[in-house]
Amino acid sequence: MPLSITVDRVTVSAAPLAISIGDPAGIGPEIIAAAWERRHVAALPSFLAIGDARSIRAVWDGPIAVLADPAAAAAAFADALPLIQVDDPGEIVPGEPNLAGARCALDSLELAVGLAREGMASALVTGPVSKAQLFAIGFAYPGQTEFVAERCGVSAANAVMMLAGPSLRTIPLTVHVPLADVPRLLSIDLIVTRARIAARALARDYGIANPRLAIAGLNPHAGEQGTLGREEIDIIRPAIEILRSDGLDVAGPLAADTMFHPAARARYDAALCLYHDQALIPLKALHFDDGVNVTLGLPIVRTSPDHGTAFDIAGTGVASPTAMMAAIQMAGACAARRKAA
Amino acid sequence: MPLSITVDRVTVSAAPLAISIGDPAGIGPEIIAAAWERRHVAALPSFLAIGDARSIRAVWDGPIAVLADPAAAAAAFADALPLIQVDDPGEIVPGEPNLAGARCALDSLELAVGLAREGMASALVTGPVSKAQLFAIGFAYPGQTEFVAERCGVSAANAVMMLAGPSLRTIPLTVHVPLADVPRLLSIDLIVTRARIAARALARDYGIANPRLAIAGLNPHAGEQGTLGREEIDIIRPAIEILRSDGLDVAGPLAADTMFHPAARARYDAALCLYHDQALIPLKALHFDDGVNVTLGLPIVRTSPDHGTAFDIAGTGVASPTAMMAAIQMAGACAARRKAA
Repeated sequence: MPLSITVDRVTVSAAPLAISIGDPAGIGPEIIAAAWERRHVAALPSFLAIGDARSIRAVWDGPIAVLADPAAAAAAFADALPLIQVDDPGEIVPGEPNLAGARCALDSLELAVGLAREGMASALVTGPVSKAQLFAIGFAYPGQTEFVAERCGVSAANAVMMLAGPSLRTIPLTVHVPLADVPRLLSIDLIVTRARIAARALARDYGIANPRLAIAGLNPHAGEQGTLGREEIDIIRPAIEILRSDGLDVAGPLAADTMFHPAARARYDAALCLYHDQALIPLKALHFDDGVNVTLGLPIVRTSPDHGTAFDIAGTGVASPTAMMAAIQMAGACAARRKAA
Repeated sequence: MPLSITVDRVTVSAAPLAISIGDPAGIGPEIIAAAWERRHVAALPSFLAIGDARSIRAVWDGPIAVLADPAAAAAAFADALPLIQVDDPGEIVPGEPNLAGARCALDSLELAVGLAREGMASALVTGPVSKAQLFAIGFAYPGQTEFVAERCGVSAANAVMMLAGPSLRTIPLTVHVPLADVPRLLSIDLIVTRARIAARALARDYGIANPRLAIAGLNPHAGEQGTLGREEIDIIRPAIEILRSDGLDVAGPLAADTMFHPAARARYDAALCLYHDQALIPLKALHFDDGVNVTLGLPIVRTSPDHGTAFDIAGTGVASPTAMMAAIQMAGACAARRKAA
């Protein structure tokens, strides 16, 4: 049986989730609006968009409640999409990003993080941004995750990315680096640190008291006792021994090719993978439309739909809000668990 | 829509398929027998087991027709599992491999290859062997594939492994090597040679006149224009240019994480992957129970179920014949196309 990851559909407290709009020329505006339209059928917790009302109106003719106070969002949510306006970027054309839009995306992110950090929002959901556009306005972080971590006072090294779909959670231990660099970037310390953060977050935010972690091997067949590479022997096994001595439930190193079929997935709560594609190939093969990117290890709950700005389809009405809705549901469920703890 | 790979269910000519039994202490005997039992419901082409009757009787009480002449197999197939006995290995206990069994596995393979090469069998299906056991009796090939290639007079470098499931075909361009060695094993020539063999085989054996090949990138996001690695620029793109100048339909380098969801799979007939797990993670995530291992570029048709001996469950009755049946169907369909050509 495939692992069934239950996402509780609970409406969280009075504080709404804060959703940064992302690049206003991308699909962020329309998928946030589409998620609001489906708030009842999907039993979404109340949320608040942070961004630009005109960019949403350009792609959607539903009601928007422009608010000054996030505390008013929960009451407004039933009848309109609550929104806090950041500095007006001027007219934004869907699919045509510009620097004013990038500034709007960054302002939205900054404000949304602040609301979550101060408890005025129960969680942060980030819409998709264009890194190239952000870099052009001087953004000096590799991505939104590192920015959010810094604003939360957490080292980027301790902010752990997890990709989560309905039947699989994966955690890439290295991410945006050349494949040739991966072997020397791996270390016992890297694996142990990230696994501990993951285990704590799965308990705190996902209600899994004793999370079962599976750690992939780097080499084919997990190295076949060293004949196809020694990283399993020199790095992964020692890390697993340390984690087990902590009392954690850790399997591995597992042959990566046989750990993602349904019966295998049922044996763990999260798979720790050693490089980007090892984590993302199975996740996207199985859950391309509803994958959620979660940042573990932060003082706030932060999720994001696992897709980009999709400038090529922005404003055409074909963008699916499924991943955004999944990100909202997961953020709401995690925030509810923290509140109940 | 996922790519639908049609496997024609045709009974091929008078010559049966030859199935080598694999290690007689593994699950080979029982899955071959189970496939024969399902010959009608699965519309399997007639086949002939090469191996040891006693090892099959130890795990199955159905009828076996022990033959001296493979030409008698087609007539016998309706009422019994046709089998040619190799040298008697003595009593084999399921789950307890020994050297006599390894010798039986090798003799079976040798005879089955010979029958296929001589046209007395229409195709070769190989049962699962234990490499450790074969090495112990002096077997000097990395695996069955290289042995089969040599017996067919083909360099192992020109025998191309393809993994095929109902909605995905992948071709790993490097296989059983440490991940750290992969970047320097890649070359323009490797990609071009294998892609040409794959394209010819997809046309000849699968009836795809102008096969669409997709080549994966090595690095995250296919290297992001060189910022995450240069293999895409230095090796993969030049190879693709050469292949396109041949007139082949080749896409890539594609970001590996976004090429295996259903809509992406519908755009190609086979994915060329750069390392073992890049090809096998998506194949086994999607088709763990019915993946077929095919060797392209040989003068004979050769398939194999994409699993091992499973000594731990041999003889317990739980082994699934699904992959063996898929291997038989695919071998039969490929052989029929060659015969019709």
